[in-house]
Amino acid sequence: MMKSLCILGSTGSIGRNTLHVVEQFPERFCVKALVAKSSITLLAEQIRRFRPEMAVVFDADSAQKLSALLPAGLKIDILSGPDGLKAAATLGSVTLVVGAMVGAAGLIPILDAIDAGKDIALANKETLVMAGNLVMDLATKRKIRILPVDSEHSAIFQCLQGNDSRSVQKLILTCSGGPFRHKPIAEFSGITVSDALSHPNWEMGKKISIDSATLMNKGLEVIEAHHLFGLSRNRIDVVIHPQSVIHSMVAFQDGSVLAQMGIPDMKTAISYALSYPERLPLGQALPDFPRIGALTFETPDTDKFPCLKLACMACDVGETLPAVMNAANEIAVQAFLDEKIGFSDIPGIIRDTMDHHTVFTSPGLDEILWSDSGKGCCSHGR
Amino acid sequence: MMKSLCILGSTGSIGRNTLHVVEQFPERFCVKALVAKSSITLLAEQIRRFRPEMAVVFDADSAQKLSALLPAGLKIDILSGPDGLKAAATLGSVTLVVGAMVGAAGLIPILDAIDAGKDIALANKETLVMAGNLVMDLATKRKIRILPVDSEHSAIFQCLQGNDSRSVQKLILTCSGGPFRHKPIAEFSGITVSDALSHPNWEMGKKISIDSATLMNKGLEVIEAHHLFGLSRNRIDVVIHPQSVIHSMVAFQDGSVLAQMGIPDMKTAISYALSYPERLPLGQALPDFPRIGALTFETPDTDKFPCLKLACMACDVGETLPAVMNAANEIAVQAFLDEKIGFSDIPGIIRDTMDHHTVFTSPGLDEILWSDSGKGCCSHGR
Repeated sequence: MMKSLCILGSTGSIGRNTLHVVEQFPERFCVKALVAKSSITLLAEQIRRFRPEMAVVFDADSAQKLSALLPAGLKIDILSGPDGLKAAATLGSVTLVVGAMVGAAGLIPILDAIDAGKDIALANKETLVMAGNLVMDLATKRKIRILPVDSEHSAIFQCLQGNDSRSVQKLILTCSGGPFRHKPIAEFSGITVSDALSHPNWEMGKKISIDSATLMNKGLEVIEAHHLFGLSRNRIDVVIHPQSVIHSMVAFQDGSVLAQMGIPDMKTAISYALSYPERLPLGQALPDFPRIGALTFETPDTDKFPCLKLACMACDVGETLPAVMNAANEIAVQAFLDEKIGFSDIPGIIRDTMDHHTVFTSPGLDEILWSDSGKGCCSHGR
Repeated sequence: MMKSLCILGSTGSIGRNTLHVVEQFPERFCVKALVAKSSITLLAEQIRRFRPEMAVVFDADSAQKLSALLPAGLKIDILSGPDGLKAAATLGSVTLVVGAMVGAAGLIPILDAIDAGKDIALANKETLVMAGNLVMDLATKRKIRILPVDSEHSAIFQCLQGNDSRSVQKLILTCSGGPFRHKPIAEFSGITVSDALSHPNWEMGKKISIDSATLMNKGLEVIEAHHLFGLSRNRIDVVIHPQSVIHSMVAFQDGSVLAQMGIPDMKTAISYALSYPERLPLGQALPDFPRIGALTFETPDTDKFPCLKLACMACDVGETLPAVMNAANEIAVQAFLDEKIGFSDIPGIIRDTMDHHTVFTSPGLDEILWSDSGKGCCSHGR
């Protein structure tokens, strides 16, 4: 049966790749709503190609610009702002919402979509990092599926298929180790922005590239995995695997470890989330194992990369601490990208912010957003 | 629900490990019939411990010896010979037959068990190599499950769970490469029996150790995988993986590759076949990836190891050729173990035998057994 999509963040890399898959399988997918922040020209192209019922942009100004780019008489609702986001996420004809917006802004429309009974293909990290309990509880209540799009969580999700979740012993998240895996810690203060942006295996945005270099990215993934798969944090291991061929693994109580592998291309994970439980004939290349030669593994060095430890701590405490940590990380990474602080200052800023935060117990959405806004801690307000 | 087992070959290594699993989970498994060839003392111990309804041995003489070792008044049927085998394999109270006898002798009772509607945990290689079509057709007809016990096929079976078999692109069988992976072919003529018996990773019997050294073992596994998973031979790759941590892999049409891994211990695969689709808390150690350091891969060298190519050829031709190849290999390996031929003579003997065999099309059991008996080829009769 045809799946009808709303893509929250259609002009970003996940959104564009999602549309590639839709284009490849028009008999399986159609697009009902597209949401983009400000890449209006690309959004207009996507609208002409995929003919959604609705398009949503950041503000009224962008909406006007978008209208001007579209053929006169094209039947489409163009909305903007929070009301527009909600309308797209809850649109009646949509069955699956792809959550590919970046940052905290992605959280609210996903909660709306879940509440409206839509399945979610989830790429937005903040959703589970900030509000994992809220999101998973609502998903259970509304009996909808959250299908991970991130390659690590997709790998775990794939390895769990056909297995009773009670038989899981632990999850093993693999991590490329970033560009500074072998750099002596004494040299960290000299790291430049362009050093930190050069990820060895994946083409990514700036924020996630820095998070990969500090290992905060893996820490955020630990928190996400904790919520998504319902396992306590001490049953989620991180192992450095520089080739990024194994996307992650699951160890079961019978001693069996299942791993999902592939070339570093997000299309496989995206298409699995879209077509689950089926697998589409994507025509992707397979890893050539003899050519790769070796898959290697190391233990992460949390003295060199304290962000991983901070994220694990935030996961253990839970409540509003992960949201505060995530906000502090966003601010610190931006400050590093703006060359206001050094690479090795990032963890200290996050740690200070976490230390000064008074945790709310059982927070609702308001407390979470308040924590995210920087008001939940005494410094580094946004 | 309790599973009631018949173990064909209870005193061999698969049989003994099966009983270890049974002992660990008495609430899940009970033993109704034990079959052993000649290790009477061990069989008597197993009977005292597991209290089967029936025990079967090779001949009347062994049956008498067994009786003498058992407590007077113990309620058990002791049978022998082919009729005994059939009685055990088709015993009314049995739900799962573990096929762990070695050699062609294991084939007939497995066919009997399938015909009687029993599920099969299959460890006997000859069953599928000699009679794959017969066995799989009968299994489909009787709607029973064949659950692989071999670590490679169990790995593939595990990776296939939760996936539509039509989405499989290829199977990737891993192979340790045996002890002569890096030995120059010029030195093959000097290989001694004890050189060839030293397998790097697994403790195994003599026949299978030699088969691992010639790569015939992997060739036989290609034939088994072809039948078990219904894929043409050119969709079954073999890759050398000396650490034997990855037990095998499945590549899907979306570019995803799933791998099953574990320490080299057959208990995981045995228990999965016994408890499928559940996984038992075996208390097995997990692979320690950072400690292992690297998983490596190479392309098999079929010039050095022609047995792999011969088996693929036999698989492509099918009919009676795999049975003939298997019989020729048994004879050649025995001759090598008896120091009558050199290691590098093994492939030539098999090739000659295959060349001289006139293939029967759509063979029945009689033609297959006739091919196996050595009468199907002009030389090397047993």
